[in-house]
Amino acid sequence: VLYKWEVNTKTARGLETRQGILAVAVNIASVDGLSGLTLGRLAAELEMSKSGLFAHFGSKEELQLATIEHATQLYAEQVIIPGLAHPRGMATLYGLCHEYVTLMEREVFPGGCFFASAMADFDARPGPVRDRIAQGQRLWLDLLERAGSDAIEGGEISPSADPAQLAFELEAAMLSANWYHHLYSDPEFFRMARRAVQAALSSKVTAKGRRVLGAALVGQPA
Amino acid sequence: VLYKWEVNTKTARGLETRQGILAVAVNIASVDGLSGLTLGRLAAELEMSKSGLFAHFGSKEELQLATIEHATQLYAEQVIIPGLAHPRGMATLYGLCHEYVTLMEREVFPGGCFFASAMADFDARPGPVRDRIAQGQRLWLDLLERAGSDAIEGGEISPSADPAQLAFELEAAMLSANWYHHLYSDPEFFRMARRAVQAALSSKVTAKGRRVLGAALVGQPA
Repeated sequence: VLYKWEVNTKTARGLETRQGILAVAVNIASVDGLSGLTLGRLAAELEMSKSGLFAHFGSKEELQLATIEHATQLYAEQVIIPGLAHPRGMATLYGLCHEYVTLMEREVFPGGCFFASAMADFDARPGPVRDRIAQGQRLWLDLLERAGSDAIEGGEISPSADPAQLAFELEAAMLSANWYHHLYSDPEFFRMARRAVQAALSSKVTAKGRRVLGAALVGQPA
Repeated sequence: VLYKWEVNTKTARGLETRQGILAVAVNIASVDGLSGLTLGRLAAELEMSKSGLFAHFGSKEELQLATIEHATQLYAEQVIIPGLAHPRGMATLYGLCHEYVTLMEREVFPGGCFFASAMADFDARPGPVRDRIAQGQRLWLDLLERAGSDAIEGGEISPSADPAQLAFELEAAMLSANWYHHLYSDPEFFRMARRAVQAALSSKVTAKGRRVLGAALVGQPA
């Protein structure tokens, strides 16, 4: 499975509190990095006791892992599910990119893409947290790659295209727009990411793929 | 000027020590981020007293700024100068990208590209350090853009190409390769960055530009 909804045996009230705590934790981590997300920092932000937080999360690492799960659900709801709602192939591939850029444009996270921050923060810190981040990024790249393979199979992208390379190029434009937008507070970087995505797809489409891409782009920012 | 060599009134011996200290500081910052680079952390790494370090750098911020200058010199020597040694236009544009990817492949910094780490670390921390990082990244993007403009002027790239967009696409592939390589320790991401650079340039070349790019690619990893 691509992601899993949280299985929780706590009461509905406890679950609600936990989700509210994790929403704040995701925001802190997007700004300060996951390594800056300690029980003390989160307790201060929530004006809660550290022991109250301990009832939910037994350790810093458990908190970090739960925060990643929470962010994963958010990306699943806001990027993956709407992206996969499109027909297989080119429409899904473009849809996934469009939804991800839209999420960044909406500035849902105060510190930019949660997973970009998490990758940057844990790239040199081996352990379960880094493993979970690496697994999540692999799933995202694989999702883009599979949509590209479907587009080739469906005759929308030239069979000479390499879907893994295409996935990397799409992700590269979007991930870098995240970093440059945050450095300069300039939404032009998101427009450049959109143009890069459109250019990468356009350079590999068949006539059939061009019609699908053209239909997807109607009314989209250029 | 693109960068400036350090002007230092200290004795030659003091200068040498200072450069040695900053070389260690650059490495720490590439792994832990510039914000993790404190006088205490650096003193421990160097087995030096904090007061000894204070003689060189009066504050954490001064140390961070000096570390950025040191890293800038390193990029100037290893990427910018060799890149600009090529003929203007396409050869320089490709040369800059090639040298940057090569620097990353050589793993000169234990935590990956110093400036990628610095951008990620300071994107949400306003102040002189972030300003200096933003200025450095702007110079890098401008350098790529100017080489692209020169290539258009020299008839190597189609006049319909947007050199700022091209600069972004080249940088995006390289910056993202840095992050993914560090997450997975997989040099395939550098090869994907090289292919992305070649594809972005190839899609916009004229017949003249194709010959220049072809000559630059002889003997290069594909």
